[in-house]
Amino acid sequence: MAGDSETHLKDRAENGHNTRQPFLIGVSGGTASGKSSVCEKIMELLGQNKIDRHQRQVVILSQDSFYRELTPEQKAKALKGQFNFDHPGTLMSEEYAHLLLIFMECKKNDLPLLPDVVLFEGILMFYSQEIRDLFQMKLFVDTDPDTRLSRRVLRDIGERGRELEQVLNQYITFVKPAFEEFCLPTKKYADVIIPRGADNLVAINLIVQHIQDILNVGVTKRQNGFQDVHESPRQRQPSESSRPH
Amino acid sequence: MAGDSETHLKDRAENGHNTRQPFLIGVSGGTASGKSSVCEKIMELLGQNKIDRHQRQVVILSQDSFYRELTPEQKAKALKGQFNFDHPGTLMSEEYAHLLLIFMECKKNDLPLLPDVVLFEGILMFYSQEIRDLFQMKLFVDTDPDTRLSRRVLRDIGERGRELEQVLNQYITFVKPAFEEFCLPTKKYADVIIPRGADNLVAINLIVQHIQDILNVGVTKRQNGFQDVHESPRQRQPSESSRPH
Amino acid sequence: MAGDSETHLKDRAENGHNTRQPFLIGVSGGTASGKSSVCEKIMELLGQNKIDRHQRQVVILSQDSFYRELTPEQKAKALKGQFNFDHPGTLMSEEYAHLLLIFMECKKNDLPLLPDVVLFEGILMFYSQEIRDLFQMKLFVDTDPDTRLSRRVLRDIGERGRELEQVLNQYITFVKPAFEEFCLPTKKYADVIIPRGADNLVAINLIVQHIQDILNVGVTKRQNGFQDVHESPRQRQPSESSRPH
Amino acid sequence: MAGDSETHLKDRAENGHNTRQPFLIGVSGGTASGKSSVCEKIMELLGQNKIDRHQRQVVILSQDSFYRELTPEQKAKALKGQFNFDHPGTLMSEEYAHLLLIFMECKKNDLPLLPDVVLFEGILMFYSQEIRDLFQMKLFVDTDPDTRLSRRVLRDIGERGRELEQVLNQYITFVKPAFEEFCLPTKKYADVIIPRGADNLVAINLIVQHIQDILNVGVTKRQNGFQDVHESPRQRQPSESSRPH
Repeated sequence: MAGDSETHLKDRAENGHNTRQPFLIGVSGGTASGKSSVCEKIMELLGQNKIDRHQRQVVILSQDSFYRELTPEQKAKALKGQFNFDHPGTLMSEEYAHLLLIFMECKKNDLPLLPDVVLFEGILMFYSQEIRDLFQMKLFVDTDPDTRLSRRVLRDIGERGRELEQVLNQYITFVKPAFEEFCLPTKKYADVIIPRGADNLVAINLIVQHIQDILNVGVTKRQNGFQDVHESPRQRQPSESSRPH
Repeated sequence: MAGDSETHLKDRAENGHNTRQPFLIGVSGGTASGKSSVCEKIMELLGQNKIDRHQRQVVILSQDSFYRELTPEQKAKALKGQFNFDHPGTLMSEEYAHLLLIFMECKKNDLPLLPDVVLFEGILMFYSQEIRDLFQMKLFVDTDPDTRLSRRVLRDIGERGRELEQVLNQYITFVKPAFEEFCLPTKKYADVIIPRGADNLVAINLIVQHIQDILNVGVTKRQNGFQDVHESPRQRQPSESSRPH
Repeated sequence: MAGDSETHLKDRAENGHNTRQPFLIGVSGGTASGKSSVCEKIMELLGQNKIDRHQRQVVILSQDSFYRELTPEQKAKALKGQFNFDHPGTLMSEEYAHLLLIFMECKKNDLPLLPDVVLFEGILMFYSQEIRDLFQMKLFVDTDPDTRLSRRVLRDIGERGRELEQVLNQYITFVKPAFEEFCLPTKKYADVIIPRGADNLVAINLIVQHIQDILNVGVTKRQNGFQDVHESPRQRQPSESSRPH
Repeated sequence: MAGDSETHLKDRAENGHNTRQPFLIGVSGGTASGKSSVCEKIMELLGQNKIDRHQRQVVILSQDSFYRELTPEQKAKALKGQFNFDHPGTLMSEEYAHLLLIFMECKKNDLPLLPDVVLFEGILMFYSQEIRDLFQMKLFVDTDPDTRLSRRVLRDIGERGRELEQVLNQYITFVKPAFEEFCLPTKKYADVIIPRGADNLVAINLIVQHIQDILNVGVTKRQNGFQDVHESPRQRQPSESSRPH
């Protein structure tokens, strides 16, 4: 439940390069709560979005990108808004579970991984205890249900060109009950609750500085022979070319 | 609503001593939610609790310490658990309001203040907009009502030697309605919601590191030509001097 | 807070025609919670919707029908979804307040009123204590915020031909904050909370039977020497005449 | 989800004696919400509490009375406040389940049962769908968690002579998590939510009159050759000797 964050920072400072483990942050919340916007804002404030994809120290892994491949029948349903994307059975694809397992194995065996910080983002991120226990920090983006529905309707119709009734029907039939049964009860596992979403810059900056501190410790060690401990944030520039990969 | 935190850190880093302003954090939440325990844990993790009171860079100001002086009649009532300590009229003493006004005046006129960080803690901390707007960061410690009542009963009976029925009667008659009318509706102003209270070390460490970053920035400036007044133990690292500016 | 309902029924049974007072039911709940659908279902199950308007024993008074007349400027705003219909200042028109005052005066002076039962329906029905105290029974139709928004969007676009973005903008800017500030805090005054709305036939039938009992008592009195004005279809049973008094 | 109540009343009116089925009401809610007080108040207002136990038309069946017999080890734990009475495995004794099954069988095979109305009262009354579907009406007594804890503490210490710390420990360790996991999610199945509990006489009277109507229909049929349908409530006295047993 607690203390992982500080311990992690200390461990990173005290130990050498080859025990370096990524700092894993879980980010959950209902549909259209602002989970991925929060993650993207974090990347942007860290300057990581301007870095070449293969050189990034911070990466986002979104549950959405890892949906189990749908059968043709499911695809037909999905196009009509009748497919339940929000059920645990659908959401946690084998690929995603596999990826998480890789992280777990690396952690267990003390193997290095490339990124310094990974943001895992998704509706069901805290659902299984096995995955939940991976995270050193668990964030829950908390936005009112009607605000979320309003955002989702605009997004689904504006960006995805779907029909209003279909969007609302899918929301009421699948998204809402799944949130209430599988996501909302996991809010109690969160370490930090971020109200409102991506507009909440105070909370986002708190996370950004924390990540920056983690990145700085790694860099300092690599630059100085692992002696420096605390540095001020924002001192290092995202374009810093001296990072060893 | 946002961005104050980062701006503040930048301002502190970029400007000289005479514009140095304390970073003000408001901490609210219901009775026995863990507000003051969270603040004390922050002080402890920063090592500030071991520093002489007059040399501290971080201070806690608790609304409880500033209760308007009670009339003899009120004191008699209070002893019987019939006095409403949780009503805005009672809680915000003139001394406390005065103190806050001093901070506001200093801020307005760009005058320095001694501590680097102030934690303002109290049930009604976000009630008036004038005071709310003082804070660069607003934390709400969110603990379930029955958990809070359980803690309060144990505390009031164990530490304060009061009668069970009196404690429960005061809670139901004054504390609960006041919380629901004056405190709970201000939760929406919080930047960060900390569930559970002082056991939540992940959230507390996030705040601790943020404060540490603020203190480090100040130290750096002082080391580079400004008067070095008081440092926290954690800042006295040999690596500090080798820091690139 | 309680007991009015039973007392009322007894009074009606024991006293003669000239003390007959209508039974006033307040029905509140958020926008699109199903308030008016619940009222209409009650009328339908009582058979009152098939009776000539001037002969009805049960009437619905909706806050919506009594909006203060808008100024041309307000009308222009309203057409663009920028007018706050949900603020107490707008909602409680003088006509509606006047009507309520008439009821209050009648009650105070023990004057008869034509309908036997009045359903007052509106978002702010329990906001002022003066009006709240008029009701012998207070119902709150409780439907989740996202379900309500979904219904409202379909209704506003389908029936009223408005634009999606306008509807959502008005909801987020005016309807939602007004509900949270003025309506939701009055839920605590409700005697009975009806979840879901007009689909909840078990709850609706409970109210229907209660009203039917009130109407039957009136009929009985009228049959025993008082003028028999208008009866609901359900009362016209042959067994009625054999009833022991 | 709906309509059972009215249908039931009609069925009872239209059919003869031998198809008479008791009207089953489920009453749920958290510990100390007022479930059993509400049931007892209903009995009192119906005058059923003054009738000989074997002649009552309305009976209360409380889940608490049917606890699975505890093992000696469990009893030892229970005495120390360490036994989880609120877990489904504990609560639903075989005897209680058996009783419910008898009711189900009677219903299925159209066999008469003695009482006219049964109030089933318990924390987990709506947990299993099989039992939930038995009820023609589902009531949820909704009282705030801190109010409930306050009542429970006074009851457990005052009436049951237990230690404060034990009571609070059992509440936080077992009662609260069990409520949140097993009881609260079943609130959505309720037809009517009764706020506050036994003080809410308006809601209780609504239920009382409904039950009285059901009792009257049965009596009328028996008295008149099953022709009369609607009678006013309260006309029949609890002491009425003509009831066939």
